[in-house]
Amino acid sequence: MQENLRVVLVSPRNPLNIGAAARAMSNFGFEHLRVVNAYEVAFREARSAVGAGALMATAGEFGSVAAAVADAGLVVGTTSIGHRQLQHPLRRLEHGARLLKEHLARGPAALLFGSEKFGLSNDDLSHCHWLIRIPTREAHGSMNLGQSVSICLYELIRESAAELRRPKAVAPAAAGEINRFEDLLFEALEVSGYLKEPTSESARRKIRRMIRRLRASSHEVELWQGMMRQILWKMNNPG
Amino acid sequence: MQENLRVVLVSPRNPLNIGAAARAMSNFGFEHLRVVNAYEVAFREARSAVGAGALMATAGEFGSVAAAVADAGLVVGTTSIGHRQLQHPLRRLEHGARLLKEHLARGPAALLFGSEKFGLSNDDLSHCHWLIRIPTREAHGSMNLGQSVSICLYELIRESAAELRRPKAVAPAAAGEINRFEDLLFEALEVSGYLKEPTSESARRKIRRMIRRLRASSHEVELWQGMMRQILWKMNNPG
Repeated sequence: MQENLRVVLVSPRNPLNIGAAARAMSNFGFEHLRVVNAYEVAFREARSAVGAGALMATAGEFGSVAAAVADAGLVVGTTSIGHRQLQHPLRRLEHGARLLKEHLARGPAALLFGSEKFGLSNDDLSHCHWLIRIPTREAHGSMNLGQSVSICLYELIRESAAELRRPKAVAPAAAGEINRFEDLLFEALEVSGYLKEPTSESARRKIRRMIRRLRASSHEVELWQGMMRQILWKMNNPG
Repeated sequence: MQENLRVVLVSPRNPLNIGAAARAMSNFGFEHLRVVNAYEVAFREARSAVGAGALMATAGEFGSVAAAVADAGLVVGTTSIGHRQLQHPLRRLEHGARLLKEHLARGPAALLFGSEKFGLSNDDLSHCHWLIRIPTREAHGSMNLGQSVSICLYELIRESAAELRRPKAVAPAAAGEINRFEDLLFEALEVSGYLKEPTSESARRKIRRMIRRLRASSHEVELWQGMMRQILWKMNNPG
């Protein structure tokens, strides 16, 4: 999937953004960065930035959008819209990325990002089959270029199944271990004067329930026991 | 939901990253930025950055993680792991964000991000209930701070339902409109000599199927008709 995506930055102006896009690509395992009509100084600086790495070194430089997307069977643009009427089908990222991913499983596709200031021009957009919009607020729709790239790539590698995955749970301590700790705690509470007859039975029940709600692990119960033993010792051996 | 999240940057060093986090928060409608132990110059520069806006102006400055998360009922840390053994349950972002969102529907929670260079320290992590990991490649796990913040916030506002949403489709042209265009096209192909007996019937069928696969709108069919009419005229009136 990842090897089939061409990330195309059109007319980027800030070397930091080119570098940030390259870094996000590396984070998520994408390889093909193409830059169209970059402000020359920006591209040179991005290439020589510390940690730019192999990906920046192999980034392609193109004179036109047409040349940069020539091998792609699907060309998708990104936009924050609002300021102009769009002539293309516009999809929210969640939906668009799913379609793009289906295409990437079969062959090359290009994802276009416009310049920091103006986004993709109408001329750039005319090379696109459809557009993606990151669901930002209407009042502040325009995102940082590096962040846009990283969010789109994240959505592509995102696993819906992981949403529901349970983490490996730590096994809770056995009831016997809990009871041993409980005995120590009750003893400490009696010595300290916290538990007094005749209220103590209902208080004990409340504390017992609370301890069980903690779902502590063996290791944690051991830690609690150690602390409580020491506190008990101190109360029994003051001064 | 959004108003309940506290985004906590611990020991950030680069003013550009603080500003980038604030911008992503504004893009996705989050309001509460808290900075712990920021390199003073960085925080001052971020505050005065162009376009930093209201969010940076109201960002809270705290002397400790404990103070910054004091009002949160759930504290979640972020990590790229790899370099140290974690003592906390670790969840992939897709799953962790769902749990965090459930909590945010009920009350305040904090999401912690560590410094650019070292991430969250073990001391910072001890304030967390559990951790989130953005699913980056093992070989290059560490993300840019501003990008990490934006991806986590995006995952929180992401709508699973949108994944399957169909865009408002443009109604395809009626069969009659298609037929009128087809007649023009066939006429042009005959005049040009492209369609010749006896192969022409199977060729016509192939072309007819191809035209229908285009699913063109009324508007597009009109455009095609106009182009074809002109081409026909030119072929019939050469020189």
